[in-house]
Amino acid sequence: MNASVSDAVQRVYNFSAGPAVLPLAVLQQVQRDLIALPGVGSSILEISHRSPTFVDIAAEAKARITDLLSIPDTHDVLFLQGGSRLQFSMVPMNLLEEGKAADYVLTGSWGKNAKKEAVKEGKVQIAWDGADCSYNRLPKQSELKLDPGASFVHMTSNETIEGVQFLDEIETGDVPVVVDCSSDIFCRPLPVDKYGVIYACAQKNAGPAGVTMVIIRKDLLARGNAELPGYLLYRNHAEADSMWNTPPTFAIYVMGLVAKWLQEEIGGLAAMEKLNREKSSLLYDVIDNNAEFYAGHAEQESRSLMNVTFRLPNADVEKKFFKSAEELHLTNLKGHRSVGGVRASVYNAMPIDGVRRLADFMQQFADENK
Amino acid sequence: MNASVSDAVQRVYNFSAGPAVLPLAVLQQVQRDLIALPGVGSSILEISHRSPTFVDIAAEAKARITDLLSIPDTHDVLFLQGGSRLQFSMVPMNLLEEGKAADYVLTGSWGKNAKKEAVKEGKVQIAWDGADCSYNRLPKQSELKLDPGASFVHMTSNETIEGVQFLDEIETGDVPVVVDCSSDIFCRPLPVDKYGVIYACAQKNAGPAGVTMVIIRKDLLARGNAELPGYLLYRNHAEADSMWNTPPTFAIYVMGLVAKWLQEEIGGLAAMEKLNREKSSLLYDVIDNNAEFYAGHAEQESRSLMNVTFRLPNADVEKKFFKSAEELHLTNLKGHRSVGGVRASVYNAMPIDGVRRLADFMQQFADENK
Ligand SMILES: Cc1ncc(COP(=O)(O)O)c(C=O)c1O
Ligand SMILES: Cc1ncc(COP(=O)(O)O)c(C=O)c1O
Ligand SMILES: [Mg+2]
Ligand SMILES: [Mg+2]
Ligand SMILES: [Mg+2]
Ligand SMILES: [Mg+2]
Repeated sequence: MNASVSDAVQRVYNFSAGPAVLPLAVLQQVQRDLIALPGVGSSILEISHRSPTFVDIAAEAKARITDLLSIPDTHDVLFLQGGSRLQFSMVPMNLLEEGKAADYVLTGSWGKNAKKEAVKEGKVQIAWDGADCSYNRLPKQSELKLDPGASFVHMTSNETIEGVQFLDEIETGDVPVVVDCSSDIFCRPLPVDKYGVIYACAQKNAGPAGVTMVIIRKDLLARGNAELPGYLLYRNHAEADSMWNTPPTFAIYVMGLVAKWLQEEIGGLAAMEKLNREKSSLLYDVIDNNAEFYAGHAEQESRSLMNVTFRLPNADVEKKFFKSAEELHLTNLKGHRSVGGVRASVYNAMPIDGVRRLADFMQQFADENK
Repeated sequence: MNASVSDAVQRVYNFSAGPAVLPLAVLQQVQRDLIALPGVGSSILEISHRSPTFVDIAAEAKARITDLLSIPDTHDVLFLQGGSRLQFSMVPMNLLEEGKAADYVLTGSWGKNAKKEAVKEGKVQIAWDGADCSYNRLPKQSELKLDPGASFVHMTSNETIEGVQFLDEIETGDVPVVVDCSSDIFCRPLPVDKYGVIYACAQKNAGPAGVTMVIIRKDLLARGNAELPGYLLYRNHAEADSMWNTPPTFAIYVMGLVAKWLQEEIGGLAAMEKLNREKSSLLYDVIDNNAEFYAGHAEQESRSLMNVTFRLPNADVEKKFFKSAEELHLTNLKGHRSVGGVRASVYNAMPIDGVRRLADFMQQFADENK
């Protein structure tokens, strides 16, 4: 590739909550091979999902993800469409057993949305609900009201809107844990054997919009009723290695490149976690050092490494904040329309340079406006 | 963009049935802007679906599609995930009414797959089944056993595997027609007002894998039960202009570019149909002129403009055919694994030059091997 193709372009630091920033090296490879994959003569956008080329690409993506997360043989990896919100329905449709209930841990907006779909499918119990504290903290293990006879426990590892994140596993005995990792998959090593199902749409921390990864304990595949709509039965996808129908080929290809970048450029998920702690600390330090100006939403021990949420003294200052940031090419810092405020999403692919620039700007803005 | 980036690459003529060939001009634009959309500073792969940039991209794609198909105000256009096989379930889940049945017209493998999902959702009647003639012809209007009290009639406009295509509308009185146009959307002008629902995954004639277009008569949106899983309720997507959750942003972007190509380079769907008739005739003429060597699958008046299916005298000659074609960079000519034989998919984006080369090769191969 002619380097000028990509280097001439002015890129911003994009703090969007998703779809979100991708590694530049990944974008460059996608661009280079876009007209025709080397030796293939067709674009990745044009090749059959059943062609040897694409079968290899999908297998490589799966192998890299398996390696990154040390996924044991007990679990399978599926690549689906429909986003995480389709998983909100597929999880209870496939896993809720006759006469049993599911326990939902509600730590924010996404958990609540997941529950809204689950109640259509069967009995749902609330193991904990952070509504009283505006979802600014996670429950302690002792606060969880867990039913040992439940079909599964559902939780949201990182609440993208509120910015609270579990960085440890919860204990549920023999009840399988289903976790929505949409906004923090790959942000740290994960003990996959402790989970029944891990699902994540790709468009925050793992790739572009259009593919959702589902890591499922194989014995749970047996639970789904064969009378479910074909696309919604996990077993169909597992048996066909995610080719029950045409998978989102391009999105899987890019997710594979992101996994490769995590392995080869970052050095795996432990290294990624270290970097993520460093990056988010840069912002939390500014918040803590200017506590009379920046009001962080999450309590310290529940803070997210991915989505840093805070408020400014008033709406006018906030408006000025966004405008000044934009001028420095620090973009998409507005909080989710449902809660307002500021949200800086610092996913894996956000370079530490971008976070430093934002931290410096925040300090300067506080100095000038407090 | 440096022209050498794309022009240096050796491209083949790819007759894949899907994902399938795309216009080179579309691939070049995708490549040029891959690192950052002009004036935006982020890749199309990185921007929020709620950003003004993407909202405009989606609106433009919708407007171009509306213009191409002259979609009336009575109909809405949705961009969904899950492929056409998810539509096999969503259609009956949303449209089957209490106490009524759906009529299915079975003209090939995809219609049969659609029916398989529909029977899980309610009462299904078979209006016609071409099994007895190996799906080598379409029914005449008089052969259809239609129930005037049915909730809808389902048909497949083009059976991708068998290569039979409706090039005219069927008459169903007041019963809405639901048509799977997965492999022939945009191949000709379509009288949209005659249909209740038109659905098509993009990866054959409209774009890359990962997005499925659903054109639905607005009054039918009221039929869906609010207790359906959220993702499966058409109304949710219509009310949110396909942003009920994160849509497959990149696939929508590319589909918009394909629509633009159809408008600006081809000159609309009437011009496209003329070209498609010309292209497919080149192949059917070779078949008809060498009837003792090539056995076309479809009867003449049911032939598809998109998928030209035929057999050679025996398996050895067929193997030689594929090998010789491959040497000329004419690729992916194998029939679907369920039926075998040869299938040349000549979708909109297949240049007439590629079809001419294939026709010439077929004539020469017949001369040398008969
Ligand atoms: C934690 C979480 N769960 C679910 C979703 C919904 O994902 P999707 O839009 O792909 O359905 C999101 C973000 O959009 C999210 O951040
Ligand atoms: C006519 C037709 N219907 C449905 C499908 C299934 O589409 P998908 O694989 O996107 O579910 C296909 C092709 O794969 C098709 O050709
Ligand atoms: Mg939650
Ligand atoms: Mg498998
Ligand atoms: Mg049919
Ligand atoms: Mg609308």
